[in-house]
Amino acid sequence: MGNRAVSYAGPGKVQVIDTQYPDFVLHDGPGVHPDNVGRTVQHGVILKTIATNICGSDQHMVRGRTTAPEGLVLGHEITGEVVEVGRDVEFLKVGDIVSVPFNISCGRCRNCKEGQTGICLNVNPDRPGSAYGYVDMGGWVGGQAEYVLVPYADWNALKFPDRDQALEKILDLTMLSDIFPTGFHGAVGAGVTVGSTVYVAGAGPVGLAAATSAQLLGAAVVIVGDLNKDRLEQARSFGCETVDVSLGNPADQIEQILGIPEVDCGIDAVGFEARGHGSAASTEQPATVLNSLMEITRAGGRLGIPGLYVTGDPGAVDEAARVGSLSMRFGLGFAKSHTFVTGQCPVMKYNRGLMQAILSEKVSIAKNVKATPISLDQAPEGYAAFDEGAARKFVLDPHGMIAR
Amino acid sequence: MGNRAVSYAGPGKVQVIDTQYPDFVLHDGPGVHPDNVGRTVQHGVILKTIATNICGSDQHMVRGRTTAPEGLVLGHEITGEVVEVGRDVEFLKVGDIVSVPFNISCGRCRNCKEGQTGICLNVNPDRPGSAYGYVDMGGWVGGQAEYVLVPYADWNALKFPDRDQALEKILDLTMLSDIFPTGFHGAVGAGVTVGSTVYVAGAGPVGLAAATSAQLLGAAVVIVGDLNKDRLEQARSFGCETVDVSLGNPADQIEQILGIPEVDCGIDAVGFEARGHGSAASTEQPATVLNSLMEITRAGGRLGIPGLYVTGDPGAVDEAARVGSLSMRFGLGFAKSHTFVTGQCPVMKYNRGLMQAILSEKVSIAKNVKATPISLDQAPEGYAAFDEGAARKFVLDPHGMIAR
Amino acid sequence: MGNRAVSYAGPGKVQVIDTQYPDFVLHDGPGVHPDNVGRTVQHGVILKTIATNICGSDQHMVRGRTTAPEGLVLGHEITGEVVEVGRDVEFLKVGDIVSVPFNISCGRCRNCKEGQTGICLNVNPDRPGSAYGYVDMGGWVGGQAEYVLVPYADWNALKFPDRDQALEKILDLTMLSDIFPTGFHGAVGAGVTVGSTVYVAGAGPVGLAAATSAQLLGAAVVIVGDLNKDRLEQARSFGCETVDVSLGNPADQIEQILGIPEVDCGIDAVGFEARGHGSAASTEQPATVLNSLMEITRAGGRLGIPGLYVTGDPGAVDEAARVGSLSMRFGLGFAKSHTFVTGQCPVMKYNRGLMQAILSEKVSIAKNVKATPISLDQAPEGYAAFDEGAARKFVLDPHGMIAR
Amino acid sequence: MGNRAVSYAGPGKVQVIDTQYPDFVLHDGPGVHPDNVGRTVQHGVILKTIATNICGSDQHMVRGRTTAPEGLVLGHEITGEVVEVGRDVEFLKVGDIVSVPFNISCGRCRNCKEGQTGICLNVNPDRPGSAYGYVDMGGWVGGQAEYVLVPYADWNALKFPDRDQALEKILDLTMLSDIFPTGFHGAVGAGVTVGSTVYVAGAGPVGLAAATSAQLLGAAVVIVGDLNKDRLEQARSFGCETVDVSLGNPADQIEQILGIPEVDCGIDAVGFEARGHGSAASTEQPATVLNSLMEITRAGGRLGIPGLYVTGDPGAVDEAARVGSLSMRFGLGFAKSHTFVTGQCPVMKYNRGLMQAILSEKVSIAKNVKATPISLDQAPEGYAAFDEGAARKFVLDPHGMIAR
Repeated sequence: MGNRAVSYAGPGKVQVIDTQYPDFVLHDGPGVHPDNVGRTVQHGVILKTIATNICGSDQHMVRGRTTAPEGLVLGHEITGEVVEVGRDVEFLKVGDIVSVPFNISCGRCRNCKEGQTGICLNVNPDRPGSAYGYVDMGGWVGGQAEYVLVPYADWNALKFPDRDQALEKILDLTMLSDIFPTGFHGAVGAGVTVGSTVYVAGAGPVGLAAATSAQLLGAAVVIVGDLNKDRLEQARSFGCETVDVSLGNPADQIEQILGIPEVDCGIDAVGFEARGHGSAASTEQPATVLNSLMEITRAGGRLGIPGLYVTGDPGAVDEAARVGSLSMRFGLGFAKSHTFVTGQCPVMKYNRGLMQAILSEKVSIAKNVKATPISLDQAPEGYAAFDEGAARKFVLDPHGMIAR
Repeated sequence: MGNRAVSYAGPGKVQVIDTQYPDFVLHDGPGVHPDNVGRTVQHGVILKTIATNICGSDQHMVRGRTTAPEGLVLGHEITGEVVEVGRDVEFLKVGDIVSVPFNISCGRCRNCKEGQTGICLNVNPDRPGSAYGYVDMGGWVGGQAEYVLVPYADWNALKFPDRDQALEKILDLTMLSDIFPTGFHGAVGAGVTVGSTVYVAGAGPVGLAAATSAQLLGAAVVIVGDLNKDRLEQARSFGCETVDVSLGNPADQIEQILGIPEVDCGIDAVGFEARGHGSAASTEQPATVLNSLMEITRAGGRLGIPGLYVTGDPGAVDEAARVGSLSMRFGLGFAKSHTFVTGQCPVMKYNRGLMQAILSEKVSIAKNVKATPISLDQAPEGYAAFDEGAARKFVLDPHGMIAR
Repeated sequence: MGNRAVSYAGPGKVQVIDTQYPDFVLHDGPGVHPDNVGRTVQHGVILKTIATNICGSDQHMVRGRTTAPEGLVLGHEITGEVVEVGRDVEFLKVGDIVSVPFNISCGRCRNCKEGQTGICLNVNPDRPGSAYGYVDMGGWVGGQAEYVLVPYADWNALKFPDRDQALEKILDLTMLSDIFPTGFHGAVGAGVTVGSTVYVAGAGPVGLAAATSAQLLGAAVVIVGDLNKDRLEQARSFGCETVDVSLGNPADQIEQILGIPEVDCGIDAVGFEARGHGSAASTEQPATVLNSLMEITRAGGRLGIPGLYVTGDPGAVDEAARVGSLSMRFGLGFAKSHTFVTGQCPVMKYNRGLMQAILSEKVSIAKNVKATPISLDQAPEGYAAFDEGAARKFVLDPHGMIAR
Repeated sequence: MGNRAVSYAGPGKVQVIDTQYPDFVLHDGPGVHPDNVGRTVQHGVILKTIATNICGSDQHMVRGRTTAPEGLVLGHEITGEVVEVGRDVEFLKVGDIVSVPFNISCGRCRNCKEGQTGICLNVNPDRPGSAYGYVDMGGWVGGQAEYVLVPYADWNALKFPDRDQALEKILDLTMLSDIFPTGFHGAVGAGVTVGSTVYVAGAGPVGLAAATSAQLLGAAVVIVGDLNKDRLEQARSFGCETVDVSLGNPADQIEQILGIPEVDCGIDAVGFEARGHGSAASTEQPATVLNSLMEITRAGGRLGIPGLYVTGDPGAVDEAARVGSLSMRFGLGFAKSHTFVTGQCPVMKYNRGLMQAILSEKVSIAKNVKATPISLDQAPEGYAAFDEGAARKFVLDPHGMIAR
């Protein structure tokens, strides 16, 4: 039995390749950590991928901003149907439809026991935390493929209660593997609660998911800032206010909306590839978003930072940024008693509740991020369109199981 | 009736001056914000100062690292006896002995209602947050004086339950106005709990208070790092492990103590005047402590940052630091899912519980920070000795009320 | 200048009386605690009452279930315009429109500093906690009147940002003084969060406010139970599921809705005057709701209990209930690791955020509880209709300022 | 290979029996739920028991207060050495010394993922939550034996870092399986923090562990109440104040200690077999402790309730108590805004931190509860002495591995 997958083919390129159908072993291959080669995965399940999304963090690799090796199979946003269960699996069975958190975790270490599944200690020999199809994350094979192996499946997989209902809402449910919890984590980190005013920097899919999450948490006003007019239009489509950062400082535009130039909660859904505001908008300025959020977040407020910052960036604008150092106005943050919450979202903390919100039609995340299903073969076009700023979230549909 | 007080007399100099006995008005004077001049303070009490401590943050001004005007009366660590009550005061009476949080707050604004008294909105026309005797904090007159006015006294003052007991433990209780809660806030921000391993950067009084607080919160091991051998000795005197950062990277020394090079919780009790480690120890490197804490704090850990970072630093080593910008390895913090908790300690959140701990002899903060009473006239010598790194906390005793 | 007010006139009766226009003193009168007689209130403001609601807890007094003295002026849900400010008031001015938390608190005691304004230590000589116009609460004069005195006004009053906007949304904003925060507190106590399933016992105004709050907090499904068909209809009008407890055990009906007979979160919006389920529905059974909630709330769930339980109930069905003792299936709660959160809502913790939610049109509390303005003179009819189970929340409009 | 174990032999009797050496299957036997019979446990390890303690909750069964079948092997407090690992175990190996939480949990269900391991959904077919050697808990074989099977071992077992150190501190570490975390959970539930005043009802081992925990959490004053003079003496031995409830109401004695008749935090370490105070001390009054705690815990305080309350009690004093109903003064609790935290302690939430506190010699739990090692054969005498109120915690030492 074969398999087809999307793989990284050098800076700016992805391609669909023929590859191995998974079994219950992590085999050697591009990006697999030597200590993980040959690892037995009898606690895993093999999924027939129903939906697997292209993520902004994939773009960092595809743009050549990382040390990802060519041939790496991409994809960490995975929803699928169980087609085989490993010997040690006890609570899943063939036919179950499940969402898979992008962070791989073991469910046995100190961090997993504390709910910090984003920094599991047992899955990545390099450092705490792992993900499918990602550079320096241990080498677990990506899920932009027809079939994928999910380790520690009793722990990792979130089973949907009803198959038909799941297939009907699959474009919403597919967001549970990453961007919806990631945006939600940003909102929680920022302290969003009933009545909050919120600024979300970035109107890409994570930013829109953060804005949706802020609404779900009861925010009074959610303001989204970006340079991209289509994405801002998308934010307005579900009730957000918007700030066009190409026109200048967000503070002034926030003041026009709220009457004051500050919000209660700031969310960074941009990360290290940030660009400047106003006339500086064409230049990459890695600390711009963080510094701007310190300016516009009220004293005592919190900054939720789901946007990715990296320890090394070969393509960075300067030497400092190349090792992940940023020129931050930390004194300003201190003066305002800010709290900064960083890091990968521990998806498992949120995905069950968000699933309930989707299944009860409390939230329409697919609509809000403009989920757009495409075939596996269309992946290269999807990557390209997303890189050009399409206000869409592309969902690969390897088996044609997503209703259009 | 007169008054005597310690005032800033230009870079490197403090002197004891004759000054006005306070009444229930904030009069014009050095550093008083124009909008605060003439402010009526019938909600205040006048205290006869029993104990008022020299603080590391006073040193920033005295070293000329701020825009503090000459003549500014210093002192924000105040414990005293009520000698006059304003017309509107309802729950304090003459003879009460009280501790005064260094942050002045109104007890009426949104932030005070939320317990964030470090960023009160109504006391400093410049920005949220205020303090006695400090530059850019509204101009409230400092308490290193025989007498001092405390506004919003029913809200701000913490009354000790028994006068004799209070006088007996005054060297401990005087630490409630600032450093004990400040250190405790650092420990809380760092997530210290029962069984934690903790690293405290800085063995000055705030660092020692943070270490004491970590012990009180149940930490398993508390490690204190500094360059100053006397201060490290002081940390060892109450059961801390120590790291001599002049010998190099803290990680290696931590590994010798714990078996691993990381701790659960990191506390920055140094702030922006940080110096480098090892051979760089003589150079000011404002982000050194923060970057080091990201390195040695485990993934998922938190950084409590009571050490002061400023928005402007005229004496900074470079242009960026002059506006409070630091070159932070934020990418590393992100990769480790760190949370950073900054800002002035909201003293009122902690002082009552810490008072209880002192009165029940659960903790010996005076001994741990080596509280050393001196007369008001000895203040200049106290400032000088402290600046030279004396492993002591100097407590001014303007009325000779502290038993030796 | 005169004043008119609603007063208790013996079991089953209220009447509108002429009474004194307030000044800045708490004068003797029905229900005023001797220690409060003559208390100076220069920290207070006098409000021209714009809206003041009839509350279910008023009914306990009116039904003669308490020791309330005849002549007691009723009313603890107060929204009004400042017409006079006391000498010590600093941050309010004539013309401001404010919401007043039903709990009176001083803003100076330990509990207020901790945000527990429902149990302020300085306003009720009998015990912690106080309210306007309520038996055993210190004797503060009720607000179902043309004018009312609000003590510690800088602390207690929540000022609306804009007068015109406030008057336009007054039927929503009037719910901020009690039932909206009270229902919200129940939902928070029950641990409602995004994706929760929630059961609210009681479809009176507090129950409907709790259901609204659960929705605002992101609940996936909110189920409301009651005997009263009109009130259940009202609950369905804004998207709640309902359980008719006259038809029997809620568990069975919950199972029909959710597929399982348990919810994540249980809210008791009934209190001590509860009646049985099914055929027992005509009998008062004070522990019925609590015991039922333990049955239908999942293991690990929480019970939020805003419904009032009293320490003494002269009209109780049995001796035990007369001293506030209930026969609770506490062993069941223990087996399910339940947490029980009781007590008066500390309104100040929530009212600002809920105000923001109202002003931004995130929530329609007036519609959800069917706010129904009536004149002060119609108060007796309002009390009677409410006692008969009208599915409405009556809002007294003493000055005809509420637009119809 | 054989095995010897302590088993229940009818009301008032335990005996040491020969029994099967465990393998990786849950076989039929006394108390094993039919649905658990034959369950495969390849995720388990077999432990050679180093220390296994007699617990007060075992006494409920031995006294005949439950429906426990004769022949049930007792014991849920287990510390041992891994002698065999099941096929699916990945992170434990032969020779590891581990502590086993008394609650058995799967590490895969919703509740485990949320850290609520006391109510795991997958181990007990009857209801959420399970334990070794306990009636109605699924039938997992008890650990008062030479060897015992521990399921889901990678998840459940807490490995000690060093074998020699573990054996040296084994009398302390053995308390991690139940009473130390259970007492700690009571203290956490009661809201104990730095500076708290705490009342612990009950000076049995759980009460003493709760008192120790309160001290570790920074409590200013810890007061322990009991009828048993030896146990009170034991409480005083490590710095607690005591109340002799045989002398009457705790409130009066608390007032003598603190100056006020209330504490900040109340802990119920007694449970449903409570007896009255003062002259009622010889009568069982199941709600006495709860009602007393409501009286003496301050308004706004919390009640941590680790003491066991049951859903059925065949030996209860009255009909209501036989079904777990208690006559609680809930109206008083409501008036004081109390929060009640009940349920089995989720041991895994605390055991790692408490282990660190033991290993760093921050706490001496063995000394505080007077840990007393006895041989397996002495178990009947241990049960008898404990039932008579010995102020000791008996630790069975089946292999003579505990140093005396």
